[in-house]
Amino acid sequence: MSPSLPSTYTSLTLSSRPKASIIPGETFATNTTNPTPSPTSLRDGQILFQTLFLSLDPAMRGWLNDTRSYIKPVQIGEVMRGSSVGLVLASKSNKFAKGELVLTNSAGWTEYAVLDDKHCERVADTGEGKRRSAIDSLSVLGLTGLTAYFGILRIGEVKKGDFVVVSGAAGATGSVVGQIAKIKGATVVGIAGTDEKCRWLTETLGFDKALNYKDQDFAKKFREVTKPKLIDVYFDNVGGEILDLALSRAAPHARFVMCGGISQYNEAVQKGPRNYLMVVSMRIKMQGFIVFDFEKEYAAAREELAGWVKEGKLKRGETVVEGGLKEAEKALVGLYQGANTGKLLVEVAKLEDKAKL
Amino acid sequence: MSPSLPSTYTSLTLSSRPKASIIPGETFATNTTNPTPSPTSLRDGQILFQTLFLSLDPAMRGWLNDTRSYIKPVQIGEVMRGSSVGLVLASKSNKFAKGELVLTNSAGWTEYAVLDDKHCERVADTGEGKRRSAIDSLSVLGLTGLTAYFGILRIGEVKKGDFVVVSGAAGATGSVVGQIAKIKGATVVGIAGTDEKCRWLTETLGFDKALNYKDQDFAKKFREVTKPKLIDVYFDNVGGEILDLALSRAAPHARFVMCGGISQYNEAVQKGPRNYLMVVSMRIKMQGFIVFDFEKEYAAAREELAGWVKEGKLKRGETVVEGGLKEAEKALVGLYQGANTGKLLVEVAKLEDKAKL
Ligand SMILES: NC(=O)c1ccc[n+]([C@@H]2O[C@H](COP(=O)([O-])OP(=O)(O)OC[C@H]3O[C@@H](n4cnc5c(N)ncnc54)[C@H](OP(=O)(O)O)[C@@H]3O)[C@@H](O)[C@H]2O)c1
Ligand SMILES: NC(=O)c1ccc[n+]([C@@H]2O[C@H](COP(=O)([O-])OP(=O)(O)OC[C@H]3O[C@@H](n4cnc5c(N)ncnc54)[C@H](OP(=O)(O)O)[C@@H]3O)[C@@H](O)[C@H]2O)c1
Repeated sequence: MSPSLPSTYTSLTLSSRPKASIIPGETFATNTTNPTPSPTSLRDGQILFQTLFLSLDPAMRGWLNDTRSYIKPVQIGEVMRGSSVGLVLASKSNKFAKGELVLTNSAGWTEYAVLDDKHCERVADTGEGKRRSAIDSLSVLGLTGLTAYFGILRIGEVKKGDFVVVSGAAGATGSVVGQIAKIKGATVVGIAGTDEKCRWLTETLGFDKALNYKDQDFAKKFREVTKPKLIDVYFDNVGGEILDLALSRAAPHARFVMCGGISQYNEAVQKGPRNYLMVVSMRIKMQGFIVFDFEKEYAAAREELAGWVKEGKLKRGETVVEGGLKEAEKALVGLYQGANTGKLLVEVAKLEDKAKL
Repeated sequence: MSPSLPSTYTSLTLSSRPKASIIPGETFATNTTNPTPSPTSLRDGQILFQTLFLSLDPAMRGWLNDTRSYIKPVQIGEVMRGSSVGLVLASKSNKFAKGELVLTNSAGWTEYAVLDDKHCERVADTGEGKRRSAIDSLSVLGLTGLTAYFGILRIGEVKKGDFVVVSGAAGATGSVVGQIAKIKGATVVGIAGTDEKCRWLTETLGFDKALNYKDQDFAKKFREVTKPKLIDVYFDNVGGEILDLALSRAAPHARFVMCGGISQYNEAVQKGPRNYLMVVSMRIKMQGFIVFDFEKEYAAAREELAGWVKEGKLKRGETVVEGGLKEAEKALVGLYQGANTGKLLVEVAKLEDKAKL
């Protein structure tokens, strides 16, 4: 039997902007006494949403800074922003019916929310059950899958025979990037933070090689693996030393897909790539992108990604943190420490436990 | 009356690789006892070349490093490489006749050389006398003019209404870049190292604004001048702090033309742009290029550049160091200190003083 709707619910708000790393218990505040909205209070076009899964994303650290970026900062006191999937508990929308799964960027770190239907999207049924569909919609078919897709295909222009190196390779984005590059006929080397992740990349995902960047001999191994063939496409999730190594081993006219720089997100003073002048001498095209720019093409991209999953060419990977919303802050800190393999999600409520109205 | 050919001549060779800045008297060795080749020793296809002008180029510092680049390093003991214009003193080539002016990258820092005609190119007559043609062929119609041309047009894709910022703006390349951007209808701000250079940019060359990066309030002024309109195209000759400022003020989808980074060439440990993650958030295309890649299009580009010069739309600027080849080393050091306005050349021999055979 499902529990009935509680009278109060929990949300996490930004309480102070960290200078460097997120400080658990200080950066976010836990509010446990929000009065749960009643289904009868919904206005036309609104739904009552119960969060099932939160997506944790490296970019979140950036949203906590009060600086100019592609998106405005989270404000102090505001519920922490994020993508999530949830269940429609009640609906006054003619787009969504009670019991449906929806995807939104408007709920954030909260157990319940009242949402306008225009900020929600139906979760596609991937034919393997509701839980799997929910997870896929935040990972391989979600923003990280799409980021991988547009990044490696449109910015990296990967083609058969290319030599591709991916950093953050065992993460949500990187793991999909490498597999798409393989699908397109490239040779792919992944860089990740543990030997176990490296084995996953080569043995399960089919990467040609994988290197552990925490290995003492990493720089030496990196140079060996990029010899004699230099790097045609480097997909950067990480920045820092790995980016510098990649620059030093770039082929003439290499494409550097600048997706992110997680090694720098928690640094009070960020470090630029000291080998950046290879951009000139090797005529590198170093190009950044934000997945949102491709929004009009999401549907077509998801279809292709889902097709690859079905054919077994694209394997999924995710790390699901259990224990509810209160785990979100710790889990987010873990993201910057490599706690995840594949996409990192927090399971805020289990589908079986959905609230009864 | 012209002097007759001397029995020996001078050349400068690389004697030790500098770790940071060039050390006058140590980096290069002066060889004054090279026996002058006799005109009768020429083989078919060869010419006897007397250097008139040497081009001094920031890239020279890079050629002294033993690292992988777009061109192989100058070897210890080798005559210092460089572009030069000289006179054909004697010819066994059917491409060039005695008395003609030729352009070459094969002579380097030497007073005389025997050259294969396939490594030489005829200097175009710009209709204002031989000396002017020689200078133009190394500046506005030479590699720096071409670098400006392909960089701002092909890599920067400058178009009407763009807001363009150029660093190293009073130099050989930068001064042409800004003027081409103006011809194309952009608004142009130049950055240079003295107030006098800044006045030259706005008053003589028609830049919209110019800022002296040595000014105490430079960073503040830079932010003001890029407000509210952010930078669409940044043409970088310099790197360092100016590049970081430009990144911080880049418009979404800005193009960063990576031409060079002279502020870093003499540093033992180079510094990367710490704001490089703006490449991601602002979706910047940061692209390097080497002018040599456009070789097939030089002729057409020179024609267009020469046309603009004739119409008075493109003004020339150069600093000609007199005193002969022995001045080359000191002049090169001066290049990294901003001694020049426009193109820096060393006049190795005066046309009037050409050797008589
Ligand atoms: N441009 C866009 O539109 C867009 C969209 C989504 C994501 N992104 C970016 O893509 C990158 C990956 O995001 P994601 O969501 O797929 O996260 P993710 O890769 O699943 O998780 C982050 C991973 O980064 C690695 N990492 C953490 N600190 C590191 C360090 N100092 N050096 C090297 N690796 C480190 C960790 O794995 P290890 O064990 O290997 O260290 C961790 O698992 C991020 O930079 C993110 O900002 C960009
Ligand atoms: N990619 C290519 O194919 C290609 C071809 C040619 C040249 N380049 C590059 O283009 C750039 C300009 O070359 P150029 O031949 O036209 O030389 P240039 O600009 O005529 O001369 C160099 C100028 O740089 C400025 N400078 C020196 N040190 C500086 C510093 N620390 N910070 C800021 N400015 C500094 C000086 O002027 P101030 O008084 O303003 O400091 C100096 O006059 C160089 O980076 C060069 O390597 C690239």
